[in-house]
Amino acid sequence: MKTKKINVAIIVGSDSDLPSVSPTAKVLESFGIPYRINVASAHRSPAKVRSIIKEAEKQGAEVFICAAGMAAALPGVVAAGTVKPVIGVPMEGKSLAGLDALFSIVQMPPGIPVAAVAIGKPGAQNAGVLAAQILAVKDKALNRKLADYRKKLATAVSEKDSRLQRYGIDRYIEMQNKETKH
Amino acid sequence: MKTKKINVAIIVGSDSDLPSVSPTAKVLESFGIPYRINVASAHRSPAKVRSIIKEAEKQGAEVFICAAGMAAALPGVVAAGTVKPVIGVPMEGKSLAGLDALFSIVQMPPGIPVAAVAIGKPGAQNAGVLAAQILAVKDKALNRKLADYRKKLATAVSEKDSRLQRYGIDRYIEMQNKETKH
Amino acid sequence: MKTKKINVAIIVGSDSDLPSVSPTAKVLESFGIPYRINVASAHRSPAKVRSIIKEAEKQGAEVFICAAGMAAALPGVVAAGTVKPVIGVPMEGKSLAGLDALFSIVQMPPGIPVAAVAIGKPGAQNAGVLAAQILAVKDKALNRKLADYRKKLATAVSEKDSRLQRYGIDRYIEMQNKETKH
Amino acid sequence: MKTKKINVAIIVGSDSDLPSVSPTAKVLESFGIPYRINVASAHRSPAKVRSIIKEAEKQGAEVFICAAGMAAALPGVVAAGTVKPVIGVPMEGKSLAGLDALFSIVQMPPGIPVAAVAIGKPGAQNAGVLAAQILAVKDKALNRKLADYRKKLATAVSEKDSRLQRYGIDRYIEMQNKETKH
Amino acid sequence: MKTKKINVAIIVGSDSDLPSVSPTAKVLESFGIPYRINVASAHRSPAKVRSIIKEAEKQGAEVFICAAGMAAALPGVVAAGTVKPVIGVPMEGKSLAGLDALFSIVQMPPGIPVAAVAIGKPGAQNAGVLAAQILAVKDKALNRKLADYRKKLATAVSEKDSRLQRYGIDRYIEMQNKETKH
Amino acid sequence: MKTKKINVAIIVGSDSDLPSVSPTAKVLESFGIPYRINVASAHRSPAKVRSIIKEAEKQGAEVFICAAGMAAALPGVVAAGTVKPVIGVPMEGKSLAGLDALFSIVQMPPGIPVAAVAIGKPGAQNAGVLAAQILAVKDKALNRKLADYRKKLATAVSEKDSRLQRYGIDRYIEMQNKETKH
Amino acid sequence: MKTKKINVAIIVGSDSDLPSVSPTAKVLESFGIPYRINVASAHRSPAKVRSIIKEAEKQGAEVFICAAGMAAALPGVVAAGTVKPVIGVPMEGKSLAGLDALFSIVQMPPGIPVAAVAIGKPGAQNAGVLAAQILAVKDKALNRKLADYRKKLATAVSEKDSRLQRYGIDRYIEMQNKETKH
Amino acid sequence: MKTKKINVAIIVGSDSDLPSVSPTAKVLESFGIPYRINVASAHRSPAKVRSIIKEAEKQGAEVFICAAGMAAALPGVVAAGTVKPVIGVPMEGKSLAGLDALFSIVQMPPGIPVAAVAIGKPGAQNAGVLAAQILAVKDKALNRKLADYRKKLATAVSEKDSRLQRYGIDRYIEMQNKETKH
Repeated sequence: MKTKKINVAIIVGSDSDLPSVSPTAKVLESFGIPYRINVASAHRSPAKVRSIIKEAEKQGAEVFICAAGMAAALPGVVAAGTVKPVIGVPMEGKSLAGLDALFSIVQMPPGIPVAAVAIGKPGAQNAGVLAAQILAVKDKALNRKLADYRKKLATAVSEKDSRLQRYGIDRYIEMQNKETKH
Repeated sequence: MKTKKINVAIIVGSDSDLPSVSPTAKVLESFGIPYRINVASAHRSPAKVRSIIKEAEKQGAEVFICAAGMAAALPGVVAAGTVKPVIGVPMEGKSLAGLDALFSIVQMPPGIPVAAVAIGKPGAQNAGVLAAQILAVKDKALNRKLADYRKKLATAVSEKDSRLQRYGIDRYIEMQNKETKH
Repeated sequence: MKTKKINVAIIVGSDSDLPSVSPTAKVLESFGIPYRINVASAHRSPAKVRSIIKEAEKQGAEVFICAAGMAAALPGVVAAGTVKPVIGVPMEGKSLAGLDALFSIVQMPPGIPVAAVAIGKPGAQNAGVLAAQILAVKDKALNRKLADYRKKLATAVSEKDSRLQRYGIDRYIEMQNKETKH
Repeated sequence: MKTKKINVAIIVGSDSDLPSVSPTAKVLESFGIPYRINVASAHRSPAKVRSIIKEAEKQGAEVFICAAGMAAALPGVVAAGTVKPVIGVPMEGKSLAGLDALFSIVQMPPGIPVAAVAIGKPGAQNAGVLAAQILAVKDKALNRKLADYRKKLATAVSEKDSRLQRYGIDRYIEMQNKETKH
Repeated sequence: MKTKKINVAIIVGSDSDLPSVSPTAKVLESFGIPYRINVASAHRSPAKVRSIIKEAEKQGAEVFICAAGMAAALPGVVAAGTVKPVIGVPMEGKSLAGLDALFSIVQMPPGIPVAAVAIGKPGAQNAGVLAAQILAVKDKALNRKLADYRKKLATAVSEKDSRLQRYGIDRYIEMQNKETKH
Repeated sequence: MKTKKINVAIIVGSDSDLPSVSPTAKVLESFGIPYRINVASAHRSPAKVRSIIKEAEKQGAEVFICAAGMAAALPGVVAAGTVKPVIGVPMEGKSLAGLDALFSIVQMPPGIPVAAVAIGKPGAQNAGVLAAQILAVKDKALNRKLADYRKKLATAVSEKDSRLQRYGIDRYIEMQNKETKH
Repeated sequence: MKTKKINVAIIVGSDSDLPSVSPTAKVLESFGIPYRINVASAHRSPAKVRSIIKEAEKQGAEVFICAAGMAAALPGVVAAGTVKPVIGVPMEGKSLAGLDALFSIVQMPPGIPVAAVAIGKPGAQNAGVLAAQILAVKDKALNRKLADYRKKLATAVSEKDSRLQRYGIDRYIEMQNKETKH
Repeated sequence: MKTKKINVAIIVGSDSDLPSVSPTAKVLESFGIPYRINVASAHRSPAKVRSIIKEAEKQGAEVFICAAGMAAALPGVVAAGTVKPVIGVPMEGKSLAGLDALFSIVQMPPGIPVAAVAIGKPGAQNAGVLAAQILAVKDKALNRKLADYRKKLATAVSEKDSRLQRYGIDRYIEMQNKETKH
């Protein structure tokens, strides 16, 4: 993977975070953005975190996305090791519903920012979109893709609304229940 | 201001947020990044917010920075109106210590990210730095300035440490007290 | 639906909120209050939100009910677009138990109120009752229906108490368990 | 006061809440809405609360506004005693920053809604505006006043923005500081 | 039930609270303390709450135990209607884990105390014990029963410890798992 | 003090809590209830806490009132050492606004209740009232005093309301401001 | 068990905490550290807690590990009874997600520290590691084992990363799902 | 300072934390424990943090004490760089009362513990005591000093209690007020 050209480097603090971070990868792929993804822990394998930062920068990484739960030091530690923008995704964890990770990620001291997004999967998806928005600063084609993506989001909402107008709320909920069962 | 070339547009939800946001402006100026700053409210003047987004994009804005307190809808509303990256700074407010604004800013739904930074002045300063990091994606000179800035941060900590080694903790605290009085 | 006469417009930020909002619709129907219900997102389809407000006002809407989770900007954005009373229902979301939506909805800045109700289904039911109470300001028949509704609430509690006196707590709980199983 | 015609009844749980509730009175006066205001406690003088509800309804009250801190039972107790809409304003209190009052006011059980607004003075001002919006359901002149009020809010923001464009952020903050001193 | 002699009156705000309050009844029965238990809501049937207080006092009630969730006004409303000690048990509810009910119950204003106990079943059990402790002020036999109860608690812990010493932690956990399955 | 007859024993975890607990003493004195008050720490002087419990019980103490901040183990430790009712008053502390002390006091495990009251001075006053209510179980004269106290509370609210009716809200607030200055 | 030589004494407040504390025992065993484990409650069996402290010190205990939920007084009570380091593990409980136990354990008053670790199982595992780190102060062999343990942690992360590089994120998640099913 | 023999290394994330950490230094000095103290930031000067760890270990440091606010990564980053016990002191910060720092410090992932103490000055004092307790594992003289320190704490409480018995609560509070003025 080392010599591959990439734009984004995703690092997760634990492999148990991979299912939550899956939407990040999906979004980047849908925009055609090459990325690498690694498991590395700020606390258990700090040296590896530092070597990933260096490798990723050599491969051309312009944005880092770091997902971590609990004390969630990973995004801040990566931000301390690069001047590229770092996006932090708070994972939910088992006890404090992700509030611990959110505070650890967003409350960075003056000088070393981390761009925090929402807790869990919604944040993971948005980390991918935000990375695309940042890369679009120098990539007009990506800018157009983002405009298209935005239109699709609006269209998807409209289609759901049309369906609601056609079937009414009770029938709509019934259909939702059937779909989640299958 | 309209025809001026800018890279960053700062919008604050209330003029009472201006003192907290002052560090954002200072940081952008120190990096030589042209910006505009406006007071506009997502709730009290939504049409104005929309027109500022359009004007700012015409002026070349690549990043938006929005500071707001309480329900803090401004960053999300701006994010809904542009595909450029939007940084949200939660203001402290009077009752809930900024937790209300933090939740309103960071918990964006899938598809429309806002990059949240810390509550209050530390976040405002970091919003400026993060904007510079984003712009540096296509500006190598800015990248070098960010590396210099990072070195200065480290040096400033080192100088404080040297001073602490020279004077010891008691004398250091005395000197701090004197400085804050003047 | 556009030419239909309505009194209340319900807007949900996502179709996943429909099951939680179902009690709102049920209450309005029980009071004989005509309403429309739409899916529209303040962040993903802001233009649609604005058009729904206009349509609904033309149809005679006197009250808006908006349900949203996470950053929950929808009620505030609707309140910014109409001078009709807006009721906001915070949805529970996945991580912060609806506290994020509650703060986003209730902490509105001076001048643009949103009437916040409880998190989730209890709030959704109350949104319908509150809308009826507001409409009753100019509708004496509705006022009488509300007085009846209130009596029924008291009677329902009394009947449960009578049942408790008849069967005792242990037998009552057994019967509850059986009912939830069926 | 009993025979006076009123539209709104304000009740505060303690006279220490009066300064926080002052904006409610100011807003109602600015809209020309007649109101009564009483000190009465759901816990210390519950009989008085019940008699105020009856008196106020005889005087024509269409909306109740209740401000209370800590356990903040007042809005709910009033809501239990009338079918008119009840607006609850959480007071900040000394220890929990108003979070206790907010939860006590907003988390009403199904069937008996309270319309919660923001904690402290911003909520008190909005309680007045929300009451006006509710009364406007049957008062077209009030509806026009609300539209004017909304325009003034937008204009006030615009004027602050114009001032900011003229003087710049540093000079603006200086002027703010001078004004707060005087 | 009205002419029956009782020492404690239990009131729950909703019949859905009965399973959580079951331990209160069990504890009172184990101490041989006669009680009544009613479903009555401070918000939906306030008149009934007042009549239960009067009836219960006539029957000799010396302590009230009130369990309620969400806004949880019941304990405070009962405390406002009697000078007998009132114990409040916060119910967990669906969204805020009982924190809303805890704040509503414990943060009573000066002059009208409620004795708050833990959230949910542990609090319900303790409400029964606390009621017994209060009644023991004038009942020496009850005082002895409480001393016995306390010894049994200590013995139960000791027996568990003995079992742990005999079997070791792994085997103990296995046995626990088997018991919960059956 | 040891041979003095008392009904209530107050223990504070630190002498810095004495100003907050002063209202407890004032209330007990106003009801003519003899009490002792000690400084003793569950963590720093646990042996002393145990000896105070024994002494106080010999002096006839029927109720314990314990005020503590932060980890606030004192009320629970006293509850573990007596079967008399124990009232716990959470002190505000410096960082977490008393939420730490509230959780430590109210979340007692099954079998060993503590009666928690509000955080800080309002809770301290109510601890005194609750102790009086408990003692009134066997003291009819005290019961009458409590009824009088309750009437005085209602009268005090009424007098404030009368004053508000006479002077109006603006003049009332002015008068409040003058009084707090003197 | 009394005459056995030990280095660590584990005490849990309830046998329901044993599954959560199992990782502590596992870690100590993996380091070859002899320990005792007891169930004893600060509130239900305080005398037993004191006797365990004395016994454990006679057996040579250098570190205490105490796990408790809710009011979680156990670690503080043990810390009050020994000058050996005490590690406190907050248990999750049923309502407040362990936040109550965390505050009760970490917010110790000046002079009597408790070393708090994370809520639930991650904290229980770390309590074992921290105990080993403390004992390593006088045990060089243990120091080397800790260095080895640290390397294994890093290696485990690396192996997961290698697996991720080999299979990619989608296949990795599939394999995780299969493993958790078996 | 490098060749000096030390037992404890204190690191603060910012020189603004020095006044809060001053009690740590005072406690270590009172026990005669040699220490070094440095300002170094996990985010702004991570390389310096790593070099301090190495230097301190060469000087014989057996315990690390790290104080940090906001995202507070410092204790965890130091814990990742040494197998010596690390004590973390959460600083209060400006917005979230130290809750952010507490979560960031205490919620460490499995394998890398940090021993968290209370927020702010009480925690800083306890960090010094806990370090002494850890060092006492191999230093009997220090163990005796800790036993003496514990007795002094108990005596100090007793003396305050004696003073309270002599003067009564009102006079005691007056004397406190006078002392804080001087």
